[in-house]
Amino acid sequence: MSAPLRLGIAGLGTVGIGVLRIIRKHGALLKERTGREIIITAVSARSKSKDRGISLDQYAWEDNPVALATRDDVDIFVELIGGDTGPAKDAVEAALAAGKDVVTANKALLAIHGQALAETAERDGRALRYEAAVAGGIPVVKALAEGLAGNEITRVMGVMNGSCNYILTRMESAGLSYEEVFAEADGLGYLEADPQLDVGGIDAAHKLALLSSLSFGTVVDFDGITLEGIERVSIDDINAAADMGYKIKLLGVAQLTGRGLEQRMQPCLVPDSSPLGQLDGGTNMVVLEGDAVGQIVLRGPGAGEGPTASAVMADISDIAKGLRAPVFGKPATTLTRVPSAHAQLPAPYYLRMTLDDKPGALAKIASVLGESGVSIDRMRQYGHDDTQAPVLIVTHKTTPDALNTALTAMQNTNVLSGTPVALRIETV
Amino acid sequence: MSAPLRLGIAGLGTVGIGVLRIIRKHGALLKERTGREIIITAVSARSKSKDRGISLDQYAWEDNPVALATRDDVDIFVELIGGDTGPAKDAVEAALAAGKDVVTANKALLAIHGQALAETAERDGRALRYEAAVAGGIPVVKALAEGLAGNEITRVMGVMNGSCNYILTRMESAGLSYEEVFAEADGLGYLEADPQLDVGGIDAAHKLALLSSLSFGTVVDFDGITLEGIERVSIDDINAAADMGYKIKLLGVAQLTGRGLEQRMQPCLVPDSSPLGQLDGGTNMVVLEGDAVGQIVLRGPGAGEGPTASAVMADISDIAKGLRAPVFGKPATTLTRVPSAHAQLPAPYYLRMTLDDKPGALAKIASVLGESGVSIDRMRQYGHDDTQAPVLIVTHKTTPDALNTALTAMQNTNVLSGTPVALRIETV
Repeated sequence: MSAPLRLGIAGLGTVGIGVLRIIRKHGALLKERTGREIIITAVSARSKSKDRGISLDQYAWEDNPVALATRDDVDIFVELIGGDTGPAKDAVEAALAAGKDVVTANKALLAIHGQALAETAERDGRALRYEAAVAGGIPVVKALAEGLAGNEITRVMGVMNGSCNYILTRMESAGLSYEEVFAEADGLGYLEADPQLDVGGIDAAHKLALLSSLSFGTVVDFDGITLEGIERVSIDDINAAADMGYKIKLLGVAQLTGRGLEQRMQPCLVPDSSPLGQLDGGTNMVVLEGDAVGQIVLRGPGAGEGPTASAVMADISDIAKGLRAPVFGKPATTLTRVPSAHAQLPAPYYLRMTLDDKPGALAKIASVLGESGVSIDRMRQYGHDDTQAPVLIVTHKTTPDALNTALTAMQNTNVLSGTPVALRIETV
Repeated sequence: MSAPLRLGIAGLGTVGIGVLRIIRKHGALLKERTGREIIITAVSARSKSKDRGISLDQYAWEDNPVALATRDDVDIFVELIGGDTGPAKDAVEAALAAGKDVVTANKALLAIHGQALAETAERDGRALRYEAAVAGGIPVVKALAEGLAGNEITRVMGVMNGSCNYILTRMESAGLSYEEVFAEADGLGYLEADPQLDVGGIDAAHKLALLSSLSFGTVVDFDGITLEGIERVSIDDINAAADMGYKIKLLGVAQLTGRGLEQRMQPCLVPDSSPLGQLDGGTNMVVLEGDAVGQIVLRGPGAGEGPTASAVMADISDIAKGLRAPVFGKPATTLTRVPSAHAQLPAPYYLRMTLDDKPGALAKIASVLGESGVSIDRMRQYGHDDTQAPVLIVTHKTTPDALNTALTAMQNTNVLSGTPVALRIETV
């Protein structure tokens, strides 16, 4: 039996306390599974005196996470502070410099500084693992980097922000506006202190950036993500999409195409009968597609004490078993820099607009679409009052460029009231 | 860079050829991901001359898989022969005795001989891995043994035979009888040479036995599984279940209870809106539940060249990266022998019966159920001809013992025509 594996845990919020609880509860089980005793030697957090419902007396305390990260009696530095700058970054860097392995749940840190941190870790033969940073309790980093190691990954998709999915599904089920459900979710404490991280799609985009790198062997490129949050999703669109057989999701999609790396995090329509379409509430889902395996769908809790701590423990257990693997699936120095594919692959689009009810209005829209090379798959005009008619169109596959040309031309017809809504339909 | 990792592959059916194809196509990728070149040195199959659509000239040939397994130029013996006796078993044993690592897709071999093989492998520090044996391309062994290592597993469930799920969903969608769809599936080559392996639930039960061991740290106990195939599932039950909001699935469930290890592979009802209920066709799904993570659902192709070869490659890649882990999640000598829990946990049940249309018949059934301690949640009597009335009952949670008492008592009422059908409803 090897010597105990000694953890230093920085950050004693929900996840940190969850990790403490698992190690206390399952010490014997973890030892059997990993072959090593796993113990916590020291902890650090902002306030020592805060009541966390669990005694910390048995652990050494450090006010400064950097001091914790470099302690002689720490083998793995577990970073659960969060944030892409400040103490989290300082402490992770200090830990690696001191020859420690690092386990983190910090998606922002890795999405922004992942390449530099990975190069440092790998140069010194240290582990830097982050299962908890992507899709909470779902072991998706492991599935991608190890479970699908024999595949060229062709596409990765995911609904990876539970708060956004909660808001969208609650809007539909209760028939409420975005603003109403946002206020409700905020009141329930479902949103980050800065809600833009959630509803602006930033948190989910951090996760997508990590999955992209793992999938395609590319340098993490958060800035290359086409990012749009859920603020402009209206209850009218949710209802109209449902009517056409779709759900609206904040969906992340990454693909390596001939044009470069396409990464999008934006509201999309997916068929309501697909696993993504059927995903209600705060649950996360990641879809992995590989040339050998076809499609794998992983579903589970994306946040919370137990699920996130479970993911942290998976990383700790792997390190205990001696696993050493490149941070992003292949050596960081071999990751490629690929341009962002701003010209995205063609897709069908959903269009919702309000026509002025004059003779020939619909014909004008149809002809403008045709002239722009956008062909109509399905069209539906709804019952209406005497001056305006709501119209829905599902197009055949079209390029975003052709679509934008069509949208501009439609605006110039003077038969529309307001601006048409256009949302991509993802083929799943 | 380490020396190349040399594979000897026995069995060149669909999966074996799939592995060959991946290694030829993704040699460079695999080397980047694992840090080692992975090469095939020798192969073995029943017929050397058979046209497999791929040249084997570059590999040494062995007629005898045992000879292949013990070659000096083989580091990993890849067993894709199948069967729990004969050449597959002989060759795996020979490989381990010769100090080779072993990767296999053979669920029957491990379900029957897993304990002995694991003890041999672990005694000598060899790997014995079998991701491809359970649920095809879904990396479920990895998810359980590694991804959820910080959890006490509380339940594992799965639809793990694509042929059965195809038959059940096709019966529903086409309104055909079991016999009709069985003949159709057999004609399409969807069934094993011995169809009992599929429709009798044996293949799926082999997989469940492996998941149980991984989940609960118990010795693989295939014989302890309560096993029932799909032969008695009628189109009437499929339609009636649908009417009550359920789907019928061949569902494997394992739980460690106070009474022992409960393992069941039998037709069950699941809510039609649940991920299991929405699983159509040949796809597999595994549901993992842990005390920290909650519920994780994994969905993907359960068979076929690409998916199964993908799983084989995951194991090979892990060995290439130096991963050494116990075969069933903890050392084989520490796995516990737990009695089979034949008295299962209480569950709701679905009952379908045909009542003779006489006054008081339904009252008699209801009172017999009540006397047996079985309480009725929902009851539905259907329109009927002049002598017989179809009746559906969904019970509240009841023990199998109470249900069996009730079924016997119902038979003795003389108001039933034929034998009532009883199917368990799994809470998912």
